Amino acid sequence: MRGKRNRSVESVGEFGLIDRLRRIAPSGRGVREGIGDDAAVLDGGRKGRYLLFATDAILEGVHFLRSEGAERIGRKSLAVNFSDIAAMGGVPRWAVVNLGLPRRVPLDFVRRLYRGLCALARRHAVGIVGGDTVYSPGGIMLAVAVVGEVEKGRCVRRRGARPGDAVCVTGLLGEAARGKHLDFEPRLREARFLTARFSPTAMIDLSDGLFADLMKLGRASGVGASVREAGLPLSPRARRLPAGERLRAAAGGEEFELLFTLPPRELPRLLREFPRATGTPVAAIGEILKTPGRFTLVGRDGRAAPFPSGGYDHFSG
Amino acid sequence: MRGKRNRSVESVGEFGLIDRLRRIAPSGRGVREGIGDDAAVLDGGRKGRYLLFATDAILEGVHFLRSEGAERIGRKSLAVNFSDIAAMGGVPRWAVVNLGLPRRVPLDFVRRLYRGLCALARRHAVGIVGGDTVYSPGGIMLAVAVVGEVEKGRCVRRRGARPGDAVCVTGLLGEAARGKHLDFEPRLREARFLTARFSPTAMIDLSDGLFADLMKLGRASGVGASVREAGLPLSPRARRLPAGERLRAAAGGEEFELLFTLPPRELPRLLREFPRATGTPVAAIGEILKTPGRFTLVGRDGRAAPFPSGGYDHFSG
Repeated sequence: MRGKRNRSVESVGEFGLIDRLRRIAPSGRGVREGIGDDAAVLDGGRKGRYLLFATDAILEGVHFLRSEGAERIGRKSLAVNFSDIAAMGGVPRWAVVNLGLPRRVPLDFVRRLYRGLCALARRHAVGIVGGDTVYSPGGIMLAVAVVGEVEKGRCVRRRGARPGDAVCVTGLLGEAARGKHLDFEPRLREARFLTARFSPTAMIDLSDGLFADLMKLGRASGVGASVREAGLPLSPRARRLPAGERLRAAAGGEEFELLFTLPPRELPRLLREFPRATGTPVAAIGEILKTPGRFTLVGRDGRAAPFPSGGYDHFSG
Repeated sequence: MRGKRNRSVESVGEFGLIDRLRRIAPSGRGVREGIGDDAAVLDGGRKGRYLLFATDAILEGVHFLRSEGAERIGRKSLAVNFSDIAAMGGVPRWAVVNLGLPRRVPLDFVRRLYRGLCALARRHAVGIVGGDTVYSPGGIMLAVAVVGEVEKGRCVRRRGARPGDAVCVTGLLGEAARGKHLDFEPRLREARFLTARFSPTAMIDLSDGLFADLMKLGRASGVGASVREAGLPLSPRARRLPAGERLRAAAGGEEFELLFTLPPRELPRLLREFPRATGTPVAAIGEILKTPGRFTLVGRDGRAAPFPSGGYDHFSG
């Protein structure tokens, strides 16, 4: 019998671990939003703005394979952080990059990795302002942190969704596992258009999967949600899948689309203006329910069922 | 024969690699100081202040052994970043923490690791505002990034040393390898006292070793430096070492003391007031020379020689 003190991180899972650690963490001063949103919201910025602070690490063999290409891997390490800043309605400004490298990695691979990262930074006028390279006895590791800014009136958090709000998602779902998890465009422009012209009440980026992430948004807001299966915006390829596989394709992790809620009166204008202005599709997929913890999927046959479970856990795999 | 394109990171070394990557990195906007100082200095802070942004990663088997104790390891991952903020004259405010964990790590170890980190954060009123836990196929990895603030008039960079300035160092040297590399106090209070009462012209924290770091400061400032061996502040234990080993003990990496330069007219008052106010020793160990690239060690016999080489390179080891 293993005693309680001998449990490994595997036994509590990634989310169990994060919950346990969060309770220990000091919140500090000037923190509007700490652990538990896509990025921290901090009172330390220029006049009228919040600072945003996000971080993500990706590791070889877990988040990418070397064969997927150096440039794409480097780009992804920054793009996942940009996606977090987008989910707050903000603009990324500066990034720091820690590279963990096995001794035998070809110099050329590292250079291309860094080039992929820097190309994305440059396109968004983000400065790479620091970092370190360290020897890594395991595989390649990239840990990136990004600081961004957002006007106080345009900051969108996870909590804020209200009963009756429309639930919307950008882009088309179902391609994450087919390369999109590396090559996705962080929805920065889309988020900025949204906060400039509409009143989103809550937002999150899709990293763990549609249902897992909508439950996070719902829990943070103290509400429930219902999703209509027929409303899910599937990619042309996913639409041709057998009925039973379509839902799984739509709910996979690492889509990096924006999931947000909006007062229903703004919905018709959103559906009209958003795709035209941004070039990116947007779909209304459901609505916010007032019962906390109630998450319902309405199937094509009109029957309601609880959300399918799933989502990716790094420690049980 | 290995072609140029097949070179590994090992063949160019850590500093060669960082130099190569730095040339690719976009500098971005609002960057007063980017890659190449202890922390980036950014125009994005509250009125009259700069933001500081630093990051460091530590890996099991490279920077620590599991047997050195969870609390100490967790504490170190944050303390090295605090040391970077101290070297700019600033105050740390918020941190994000990425934990890479093998599946079999005991939960209790991770909890204690995090507690060690959080205890140091709390003591300095720093908030832990984000982060991630990921599965790590190698050993334990901690990648921490810190955002701090500094009043514009109190920001001290690596470049700024002027010929004739006194070269000073805090604390006593020679204990890094004997546990201080884990248990050191980041010199935050000392840096703040220094910038409040004196006019330091340049500053760096001792991470790679006294001579390596003074050369970095000198190169950034376009000057040289001379150090008197007899002036080096050795720990009582290091003082008892055979003459030939004393210098090596004093010049080891990871002392995390502050190395700074000061107009010589302020030196007598510094030596009088600094230890009394901070409880930390300070020593004048040499002076800044006007010839760029000239770095001279004056031995106990009065003879001058070039700086001993050394400093730690993660990729050739």
